[in-house]
Amino acid sequence: MSTLPVTPRTRLARRAERGSFDRATIDAILDEALVCHIGFALEGQPYVLPTVHVRIGTRLYVHGSVGSRMLRALREGAQVCVTVTLLDGLVLARSAFHHSMNYRSVVVLGSAQEVTDPEEKRRVFAALLEHIVAGRSREVRAPDDIETRATTVLSLPIEEASAKIRTGPPLDDERDYAQPCWAGVLPLKLTAGAPLADPALAPAVGLPQSLQRYRRAR
Amino acid sequence: MSTLPVTPRTRLARRAERGSFDRATIDAILDEALVCHIGFALEGQPYVLPTVHVRIGTRLYVHGSVGSRMLRALREGAQVCVTVTLLDGLVLARSAFHHSMNYRSVVVLGSAQEVTDPEEKRRVFAALLEHIVAGRSREVRAPDDIETRATTVLSLPIEEASAKIRTGPPLDDERDYAQPCWAGVLPLKLTAGAPLADPALAPAVGLPQSLQRYRRAR
Repeated sequence: MSTLPVTPRTRLARRAERGSFDRATIDAILDEALVCHIGFALEGQPYVLPTVHVRIGTRLYVHGSVGSRMLRALREGAQVCVTVTLLDGLVLARSAFHHSMNYRSVVVLGSAQEVTDPEEKRRVFAALLEHIVAGRSREVRAPDDIETRATTVLSLPIEEASAKIRTGPPLDDERDYAQPCWAGVLPLKLTAGAPLADPALAPAVGLPQSLQRYRRAR
Repeated sequence: MSTLPVTPRTRLARRAERGSFDRATIDAILDEALVCHIGFALEGQPYVLPTVHVRIGTRLYVHGSVGSRMLRALREGAQVCVTVTLLDGLVLARSAFHHSMNYRSVVVLGSAQEVTDPEEKRRVFAALLEHIVAGRSREVRAPDDIETRATTVLSLPIEEASAKIRTGPPLDDERDYAQPCWAGVLPLKLTAGAPLADPALAPAVGLPQSLQRYRRAR
């Protein structure tokens, strides 16, 4: 079991019992989440933008248009924070104060590098598709040279990172347990509805198996 | 219809057609989302942390322990970015390049102020509970003076903000429409499962109506 080093920046100042530096725990959260939130600063103003990511081994990859302000800032080596959050439930206590949420989150700190090799970029594009729907990269037209050049790919090492996890029922004060108030957890999950075919779908194209029982949670 | 001013920091550099500065649009996204991601910088390092928020009128409120590093940094007036993202679907195109997601997101920029008046703090606590479950603030024990003092509440004006929204089917290149590849949207939604009662629940406490058909999407 591989464990990441704790740094002053990833040490949990509060609720340390919820923290984990175990690589397998961190990887599983990164892999389940469809989007991450990327934090970076421009002229002292922090920005947080959502985007799709994918993990390959010990690196995290994001991509976007060559014209993206965010990617331009990041590929110049700016410090970055990538955060992923999976919401698992509402924790409903007997007191307002002890309400909480069950969640699994990961924070990755560092600075990104641009991926310039076209072959490596193509591997990342395929992995991004596989990240959202298993098998998708073999069903679609792969990016051509123009599309590959028009896309910036950045990679961030998953070295300074931590997970934070809350599970289980509410923890109320002793004095409140006898209250006639419902308490417990309302589980939450990102679920897929029935696939909506593109109105312009070519005739006789069936739904791939990967989309017939799409589930996000592993 | 109230519209927020566009600033150089909220102007959408890319995909401007997806942007909105309409206050009702922004408010609806903030209200539906259970959590936000707060971005702030400490000694040049950006951090992004998830937390629950609530909107009251034209202000956004977050709260946490008095000991929280994030809240301590923010209440000293640090620049902040609060981002909320609702994931509505996977957009599956015929080409890898045109894959996307349907989403609704909001970015709010500014700096926060601490709420110190105990009465106002209590109104925010109640609103936070109502934000997660309608009616909940009347079912539970309200925060006492010690709990109120132990909680930092910050408010951020929703003045410099923008929404970004993608909806609808994939938009492929003309050359790809004839491909025998399924294309369309896989809708995604945060859904609630069956409520799990706290094993320590007092006898004969029933499930409140607000939890019997909990739905997040408005």
